[in-house]
Amino acid sequence: MASATTSAVVDPKSSIAEERKAPSFPIRELTYWIDGGKRVTDTKERIMLELERDPLWKVSDHPNLTLGETRERAMSKVRRLADLATARPLEETMLRMTIVSVVDPGFWTRFGVHFGLFFGALQGQATPSQLGYWMEKGALSMQGITGCFGMTELGHGSNVAGLETTATFDEATDEFVVHSPTLTATKWWIGGAAHTATHCSVYAQLIVKGKNYGTKTFVVQLRDTKTFQLMPGVNIGDLGKKMGRDQIDNGWIRFTHVRIPRSHMLMKHTKVTHSGDVIEPALAQLAYGALIQGRVSMVSDSANVAKRALTIATRYASVRRQFSSGAPGSVETKLIDYPIHQHRLLPLMAQTFAMIFTAREVSANYEKLMGVLSDLGNQSKGAAADEAIKELKETHATSAGLKAFCTWMCLNIIDQCRQSLGGHGYSAYTGLAQAYSDFAVHCTWEGDNTILTLQCGRYLVATALDARKGMPLPANLSYLKAAISKDGSLSAKTCKGNSAEQVSSLETLKAAWSSVAANAILNAVRDFEAGLAKGLSKDNAYEFSSASRLHAARMHTYTYLLHRFVAQVDQSPAPLRPILTLLAQLFGVHSAVQHSGEFLQSGFYSGAQIETLKGFVNFACTEIRKDAVPLTDAFGYTDYVVNSPLGRYDGDVYEKYFELVTSLNPTKPVPYFDSLIKPLLERTNETDSGPELEIDQED
Amino acid sequence: MASATTSAVVDPKSSIAEERKAPSFPIRELTYWIDGGKRVTDTKERIMLELERDPLWKVSDHPNLTLGETRERAMSKVRRLADLATARPLEETMLRMTIVSVVDPGFWTRFGVHFGLFFGALQGQATPSQLGYWMEKGALSMQGITGCFGMTELGHGSNVAGLETTATFDEATDEFVVHSPTLTATKWWIGGAAHTATHCSVYAQLIVKGKNYGTKTFVVQLRDTKTFQLMPGVNIGDLGKKMGRDQIDNGWIRFTHVRIPRSHMLMKHTKVTHSGDVIEPALAQLAYGALIQGRVSMVSDSANVAKRALTIATRYASVRRQFSSGAPGSVETKLIDYPIHQHRLLPLMAQTFAMIFTAREVSANYEKLMGVLSDLGNQSKGAAADEAIKELKETHATSAGLKAFCTWMCLNIIDQCRQSLGGHGYSAYTGLAQAYSDFAVHCTWEGDNTILTLQCGRYLVATALDARKGMPLPANLSYLKAAISKDGSLSAKTCKGNSAEQVSSLETLKAAWSSVAANAILNAVRDFEAGLAKGLSKDNAYEFSSASRLHAARMHTYTYLLHRFVAQVDQSPAPLRPILTLLAQLFGVHSAVQHSGEFLQSGFYSGAQIETLKGFVNFACTEIRKDAVPLTDAFGYTDYVVNSPLGRYDGDVYEKYFELVTSLNPTKPVPYFDSLIKPLLERTNETDSGPELEIDQED
Repeated sequence: MASATTSAVVDPKSSIAEERKAPSFPIRELTYWIDGGKRVTDTKERIMLELERDPLWKVSDHPNLTLGETRERAMSKVRRLADLATARPLEETMLRMTIVSVVDPGFWTRFGVHFGLFFGALQGQATPSQLGYWMEKGALSMQGITGCFGMTELGHGSNVAGLETTATFDEATDEFVVHSPTLTATKWWIGGAAHTATHCSVYAQLIVKGKNYGTKTFVVQLRDTKTFQLMPGVNIGDLGKKMGRDQIDNGWIRFTHVRIPRSHMLMKHTKVTHSGDVIEPALAQLAYGALIQGRVSMVSDSANVAKRALTIATRYASVRRQFSSGAPGSVETKLIDYPIHQHRLLPLMAQTFAMIFTAREVSANYEKLMGVLSDLGNQSKGAAADEAIKELKETHATSAGLKAFCTWMCLNIIDQCRQSLGGHGYSAYTGLAQAYSDFAVHCTWEGDNTILTLQCGRYLVATALDARKGMPLPANLSYLKAAISKDGSLSAKTCKGNSAEQVSSLETLKAAWSSVAANAILNAVRDFEAGLAKGLSKDNAYEFSSASRLHAARMHTYTYLLHRFVAQVDQSPAPLRPILTLLAQLFGVHSAVQHSGEFLQSGFYSGAQIETLKGFVNFACTEIRKDAVPLTDAFGYTDYVVNSPLGRYDGDVYEKYFELVTSLNPTKPVPYFDSLIKPLLERTNETDSGPELEIDQED
Repeated sequence: MASATTSAVVDPKSSIAEERKAPSFPIRELTYWIDGGKRVTDTKERIMLELERDPLWKVSDHPNLTLGETRERAMSKVRRLADLATARPLEETMLRMTIVSVVDPGFWTRFGVHFGLFFGALQGQATPSQLGYWMEKGALSMQGITGCFGMTELGHGSNVAGLETTATFDEATDEFVVHSPTLTATKWWIGGAAHTATHCSVYAQLIVKGKNYGTKTFVVQLRDTKTFQLMPGVNIGDLGKKMGRDQIDNGWIRFTHVRIPRSHMLMKHTKVTHSGDVIEPALAQLAYGALIQGRVSMVSDSANVAKRALTIATRYASVRRQFSSGAPGSVETKLIDYPIHQHRLLPLMAQTFAMIFTAREVSANYEKLMGVLSDLGNQSKGAAADEAIKELKETHATSAGLKAFCTWMCLNIIDQCRQSLGGHGYSAYTGLAQAYSDFAVHCTWEGDNTILTLQCGRYLVATALDARKGMPLPANLSYLKAAISKDGSLSAKTCKGNSAEQVSSLETLKAAWSSVAANAILNAVRDFEAGLAKGLSKDNAYEFSSASRLHAARMHTYTYLLHRFVAQVDQSPAPLRPILTLLAQLFGVHSAVQHSGEFLQSGFYSGAQIETLKGFVNFACTEIRKDAVPLTDAFGYTDYVVNSPLGRYDGDVYEKYFELVTSLNPTKPVPYFDSLIKPLLERTNETDSGPELEIDQED
């Protein structure tokens, strides 16, 4: 590939323009389909323009701000959005936050801590009169109150039941005494605590008359709302720099015998009376709801962030040229024309579409389910309630798996896209280095991913065991039916036919993944039962089977993603169907090749069929490559949202990258030339070999 | 796992102390074995202490420094190390830099750009008299000259032959004219250019009498060494913030008809005479040597950084407790006692040992080879030269694969370890967030990983084709012998025996990996030949086969790592052999399970044998877990080098983490309360519904 002749230079703008000459599908129609209709797309575009035109919302200079500047600018935007949230319909506010989560994820967290977590806790756990009280005080609109969410402690994150903070009821004064008994009880990672919040929803062990009733939620005032002085007994510190999301001021909080009125315990579920009677709720599972919402939103977030990463990587790959045939005047090849580069990016594109469509369907299902539960009210008995609770459990488990595997998938997509930019991916100004740092926390908060996969896997094992006993399977696990038999033997489904069409059709892929997921679940059941047979307790048998449980959750989640993807393809407008079908096939096939061992072990595919699938990946990459840039256009992000000179719509990457870097880093004299560099360059080596000793002269 | 009783608190120091009670091996002896002898360990420990005691070398506050402070502190350390490099033996300087590469990777780069890249270019490409000239001017010791390395351009990185900067010979003045003809010709990413360097080794197209001779190296002065003013025709700017390594001041450079004497072209290989005759070298391959050195050093670096990440993650997992049985007063379980946590960390531990031992052997082989080549001198003919060049090519290809897969492996290890810390991994003060950002560039520079894998794969395909024609195989590819046959059919080796001992013995694993690597190479050959059969050119047939080529490189590299690991186990002192054997087995088995599809397709392992291997992973994790903390102790890093409160030797994680965070972020009044927060809290909603219109009153 070496050439002693520099190649002809091609204008990058014309390089990308030619990518848009013959898309195989109507781009705008795909945007509407992704967004959920023209009306949504129009609103999003209006919001993107509003943000772009507001100088407060400049984001291209973020890498050059100090921690202090970053946080101050974020705070200045809080008010802007709070006012808009009051003035505009809720649906628009939700869309605005979706866009903000891509443009400025750290700010999104700062804003979301109050509205999503603090106010969300009130909504989910306060009684109507309590909710009314806090709304009266301005808790919804941040007029008088700004809130934070005090769950995690220095010593406990995933294990909420193990939190050490206590709230002890004092009957004499009708108060709770909130206290951090140890260093590890210190509330930690509390977003907004360092600089922003007046109040906190504190998770603490409820102790009444010496008895511990487990973790409940209490509203504790942290600061005087007029002076911002800390309340008596409250100590707060700043957690400083983080990997990302520095817009949000995470802090630590220690409580030293802080007294709050009894009515500041949120009592929608558990209640404590004046006389110290504790009334526990009939239906504890209903608290699941709030957890699910957070997880579902992270599937959407994964899709939205992945769209941006692929927009940057794909457009750059259509402009960046490297290596030519060496003939004089020959043109270098676009990165996107290299098969290996297609292999790097286009399976990620397919994964992104899988997440887009799954997120949409899961969100809709969640809303429906919440409606049903809300209609049920406190009715905890009867067929309708049983059915709803069963569905809630299924959604809880599925959303746990989706949250884990989609956030991991997106994190990988960001970093693969970043690496595909070569050295320029390492600049702070090309967008993906920060995207990685900002996104990484999604794999940890709202449930550590590994723990969530195990929750999902535990549900799968339990459901398979129930099904063996004759209990009906939920719809999303109906694929277990064929595989379940009393003797526990594995599925014997195999792929009929060896042609590329046969092995890679959506129907075959659905059957293939269902079959492999069923096997993975039955393997986890086998390991769980082996644990029991060794005499382990049920919990320990689950721990013993954790590797296969995690694997079962992965296979189930990929199967779920494929099924949701295919369902959306089936419903899509006809002109979109060919490209979406190909993307769904690539998702299913590429994932199968990556897990080929499972498919071979289950016997669904033979070695020869796996080779055919590998050939299909090549074929699909070649085909989708033709539409690669139009697909990024269909994502519908403006240059402002993409926020990377390498991902510009017009392909003018080099001029604009140079402009950005030079405008943010104007040339100045070297700051430490006189103090450090000049003395270095002009130094002489001083050596000290000591005086010659008399004794040595005797020789 | 829910409990309404907080569990008994255990002192973290005693939690880790109990881990050290009964190591299965002599820890100190393993340290010596890893380091290469007691003398090396002693020297390293002296260096670590010296760095720790020097206030300039404080690193725990790095996250809180601004970009300007970061760079200035790095510059202040340059002189300290330059003086030490002059005063102390070379071997010690090399060891010091190895430790610095872990303690402060960004500084390591700033220092290394001068000594490794700039001076390395002089050593590798200057004639003796040129080298003497530059050493006279202070190029070795930074007395008078500080250098940078001007290869990459805005438009070209991987394709060095495609660089656009020109150096045109002007016979009339006996000078070269160095020029950046386009924006994309701007030198980019040049470490040290923004603030540090007086001179640059510039890669440019050599043009003599209108003819282009390809990319050569020229020394160009950038700044006046007395005043630091830019030289005429030189423009330089600052590239500002990066993903990591902000200690090094990367810059851009544009040349506008800059004149340099003819003798500033480095002429060890290609020479240009006064009259414009160009004399090209007989043996171009010798330039490979310098490339290999950089790659080999990145295998070591991967091992060294992985050791630190695992020290932090393993020690924290031995102290952190989460979830208890729920019985009153019960103790929570250490993370490291959860099977899933062992699965997360211990295979990474095995990978780290694979890299440690491979790095050592590869470095030694490289030194030996360079000695042979140096003895050969310019003798380019004869059996000895042929043999050496063959070995050089093999080392070039193998080191390309090793660099790519080891840096990817280490990057993954860092992030998996970071995620295993839960939320605390997201803090800037626990060490792994920054480690990830700093390390990530290793996957891109010194050859983009993907391109390197393809180079390695191309060599593997070419060697297999040569072998088919009867040419002898290099030792590291002798495993191809059995698989090669004229009809190209794949290996039929299978694993005899089904017991865990039989399927997981080191001998079986070496045969298994060799067999699968051979198949992967032959698959790449098959795809390459299919490309030729379609009428593609040789280069295009290689592109066509790039996915299988990359895969062949991966399988070959893992096989190579396993063989090197086993070789070192075989030579290790007897007391170390059991634990090292188990680690080598875990490396081979875990990697095989991860690529089980390949082993099933090749027929080496059956589905049942793969299940046995999965069982072995569980077994090995349980066994190695007992030695997990002692293994991190054997890595021999002091707390200063580990630089994470969560990775402390004494396990006192919570106290020291709290101390660090609070000392670096002292509590202060909220800086923008009056300007931003008070107005937010106290605002009222101003609405403007407009005057009532007369026309509306008519109803």
